[in-house]
Amino acid sequence: MRNLTLLTDLYQLTMGQGYFNEGRHEELAAFDVFFRPNKLITYSVAAGMEQVLDYLENLHFGEEDLAYLRSLGTFSEDFLTYLADLRFTGTVTAVREGEIVFPYEPILTVKAPMIQAQLVETAILTFVNHQTLIATKAAKIVDAAGGGVMEFGLRRAQGADAGIYGARAAIIGGCVGTSNVYAGKLFDVPVSGTMAHSWVMNFPSELEAFRAYARSFPDGCLLLVDTYDTLRSGVPHAIEVFRELRAAGHEPKGIRLDSGDLAYLSKEARRMLDEAGFPDTIICASGDLDEYSIASLKEQGAKIDTWGVGTKLITSADLPALGGVYKLAAVFEDGREIPKIKLSDTTEKITNPGMKEVYRIYDRATDKAVADYIVRADETVDESRPLELFHPVDTWKRMTVTNFRVRNLRETIMENGKRTADTVPLFAIAGYFREEKSRFWEEYTRRDLPHIYKVDLSPALHALKTAMVKGKGTV
Amino acid sequence: MRNLTLLTDLYQLTMGQGYFNEGRHEELAAFDVFFRPNKLITYSVAAGMEQVLDYLENLHFGEEDLAYLRSLGTFSEDFLTYLADLRFTGTVTAVREGEIVFPYEPILTVKAPMIQAQLVETAILTFVNHQTLIATKAAKIVDAAGGGVMEFGLRRAQGADAGIYGARAAIIGGCVGTSNVYAGKLFDVPVSGTMAHSWVMNFPSELEAFRAYARSFPDGCLLLVDTYDTLRSGVPHAIEVFRELRAAGHEPKGIRLDSGDLAYLSKEARRMLDEAGFPDTIICASGDLDEYSIASLKEQGAKIDTWGVGTKLITSADLPALGGVYKLAAVFEDGREIPKIKLSDTTEKITNPGMKEVYRIYDRATDKAVADYIVRADETVDESRPLELFHPVDTWKRMTVTNFRVRNLRETIMENGKRTADTVPLFAIAGYFREEKSRFWEEYTRRDLPHIYKVDLSPALHALKTAMVKGKGTV
Repeated sequence: MRNLTLLTDLYQLTMGQGYFNEGRHEELAAFDVFFRPNKLITYSVAAGMEQVLDYLENLHFGEEDLAYLRSLGTFSEDFLTYLADLRFTGTVTAVREGEIVFPYEPILTVKAPMIQAQLVETAILTFVNHQTLIATKAAKIVDAAGGGVMEFGLRRAQGADAGIYGARAAIIGGCVGTSNVYAGKLFDVPVSGTMAHSWVMNFPSELEAFRAYARSFPDGCLLLVDTYDTLRSGVPHAIEVFRELRAAGHEPKGIRLDSGDLAYLSKEARRMLDEAGFPDTIICASGDLDEYSIASLKEQGAKIDTWGVGTKLITSADLPALGGVYKLAAVFEDGREIPKIKLSDTTEKITNPGMKEVYRIYDRATDKAVADYIVRADETVDESRPLELFHPVDTWKRMTVTNFRVRNLRETIMENGKRTADTVPLFAIAGYFREEKSRFWEEYTRRDLPHIYKVDLSPALHALKTAMVKGKGTV
Repeated sequence: MRNLTLLTDLYQLTMGQGYFNEGRHEELAAFDVFFRPNKLITYSVAAGMEQVLDYLENLHFGEEDLAYLRSLGTFSEDFLTYLADLRFTGTVTAVREGEIVFPYEPILTVKAPMIQAQLVETAILTFVNHQTLIATKAAKIVDAAGGGVMEFGLRRAQGADAGIYGARAAIIGGCVGTSNVYAGKLFDVPVSGTMAHSWVMNFPSELEAFRAYARSFPDGCLLLVDTYDTLRSGVPHAIEVFRELRAAGHEPKGIRLDSGDLAYLSKEARRMLDEAGFPDTIICASGDLDEYSIASLKEQGAKIDTWGVGTKLITSADLPALGGVYKLAAVFEDGREIPKIKLSDTTEKITNPGMKEVYRIYDRATDKAVADYIVRADETVDESRPLELFHPVDTWKRMTVTNFRVRNLRETIMENGKRTADTVPLFAIAGYFREEKSRFWEEYTRRDLPHIYKVDLSPALHALKTAMVKGKGTV
């Protein structure tokens, strides 16, 4: 495993030196990770926590790291000696991967000695921002396609990790497989892919290229039909080879279209395959797809069974960064919590102070999610009594829920530096997301102009926040 | 070093099995990497070749990799045995990192046994696409700022590698440093950063927070002044601490603004710092910047000396993928080149066939670049005779150049699997880019509506292409 301990912003270390000099580096502090609203995101799919745990468990400065830091001339020998023995000893509370989350919810909280909590900020944000972004984009694309989406983007990913962990996140968001062999091995998920245009170009004719491929892969043969002319050459040649395969006792899998008018071509190709006696073959489409083009193709009646989605998925092209932040929520003096708040002229940018939990409220009659409810960590929610919810800014907007159950979305995933959450197989995470999504009315999760899902504050949390705003940051 | 041999699309391996079965896997083939035009890109800055060389030198399937491939049930034992001994034995020709490149130019060519050339396609594209993208974005941002740009984007990068190699590419594009400590160590480049808002929030007052920081870092002290109120609190407190520092014999470095109206705040802060006797302090700005906002701030007369650019640089937010492709250029029979072409209904998508070189033509009187000139690999360019250039599609557009010199942009960086190019220090690459950029008229490199720099084909290459298009792919 790579040692990513230096994967941090320099200011985490200069602040560390500062706290160390002030004798305050081991004071406990708590920081929340959360996202702000973005008009392109209806709901987000949390991901990246597994990599956060790997990173935190492995956190240590190697000899080379310390030599490098010494070479900067910025840090004292005492501090470097301290860093040599530093391990992560904090506690991490987080939503599980695959959880549906909304703006302002603390999806991960680090409580640790100040110096550690600062040091790990950058990498935690990198992992959670990236994977949550791609899982969310994948979910949007899978929503549009209705399933059968494969992740094909490695060559356009922003580096190796973006390809590898992007593939991981894509599976969480609902993709059924990836072209990325490295990710397939690392995460034990299906890999797919058959041939490129270069294969077809490398034989004297398309027919010979198809025949050669069928010789090697007589079962599950899938042929790329758009190298020369999809309907006049590619599909007829594929049918010819499919007939030869069937005569030899093999059933073909289908064809792939990678260019041209996919709506028209897929409908014509489907008709030709059906008429030739291959109604069970599939048509796979690829080529610059995303949730918008897929929705449009489906609206046009395209006969496409599976979708290979590359660039726009693996980079989340229309929103390439999620912008999650890591904000101080509390410090602790002699074990006593002192809530902290970040003020701003923009109401929405004021943070929710103190230690918190997030409950999801489900209607017992429908088992559908009604709202999320952020509370002070020491609060409980009584399911036996009506609960009045109110809008966190426009507090006159109120609603009372009855006959509900609640679930705390967060769990302790690391305690005193030891991980307490098991590693969950990737498809189990994806299954969890799919199941939880079924508990949301479509009105809340649709891509365009969704009904805004409520994320409200408890009266106690709201009162604390209001008091701290009035007190310019103190209670 | 991580073994990234499996960092490939599955179809590279299924095609490999197919070529292996056909006995054609060791036939030599050549593939070109090139980009197509994009309206957001005026010129590109080539990068990523160093990582390509690392990857190719290290290419080998480990035991675990082979066990994984065996588990897929797709590959024969003979083929897996062959893969166990496979190393990259090919030759790679490429432009150097930091070279200014344009659409359609083969910036990297792999000539290798077919199976190897296919296997390495994906990772080569990942590295070159990503780093060229970020180096190009960085160059645009540095162009707008006129210098003093620091890369601050790690927390918003698409995974660890995107942060690390994105920082590398940002330096190539002209950034003067990065906040990313891991990248600073790996590439030996300056790292920068001082404090976050959480530091200020963690002291009883802003003044105490500044004083504590100044105690630890009396020299080069740079204070973040926007936590509470930039002009009424932050700057006055900074000035107070700067006076204390000066009284103790230390000169402060300056302040950082991370929010608000950066034009107004920087002008006011500059005036306050100047009036207080600190005209040599700098003002660093950060917060959602890119080439457009920086250009706008400069136009408004903002008094900003250095720029911390994060999200929009590290993700190339308005164009998060470059879309470079890897296309078959030739195969070889008994050492004889057989050019290959990829046809398309779209003229611009038809590839340039065969083995090629790219010459840059410079006017001897001005030392400025006039045009790039793609030729067949066996051609030479005679500098002593007038050279007639013509547009590759609108061939009636012609121009004759005289008194010129030419330079071949490409060199062999790996020969028969052994690297032949030295590793160049990162700032030397950046210097090379800066120097080469000085040989371009600003009309060609400006961000908006640039004059289109000519990339023409030699008559021999044009004739070959035309013949192959007419011959439907063959000569």
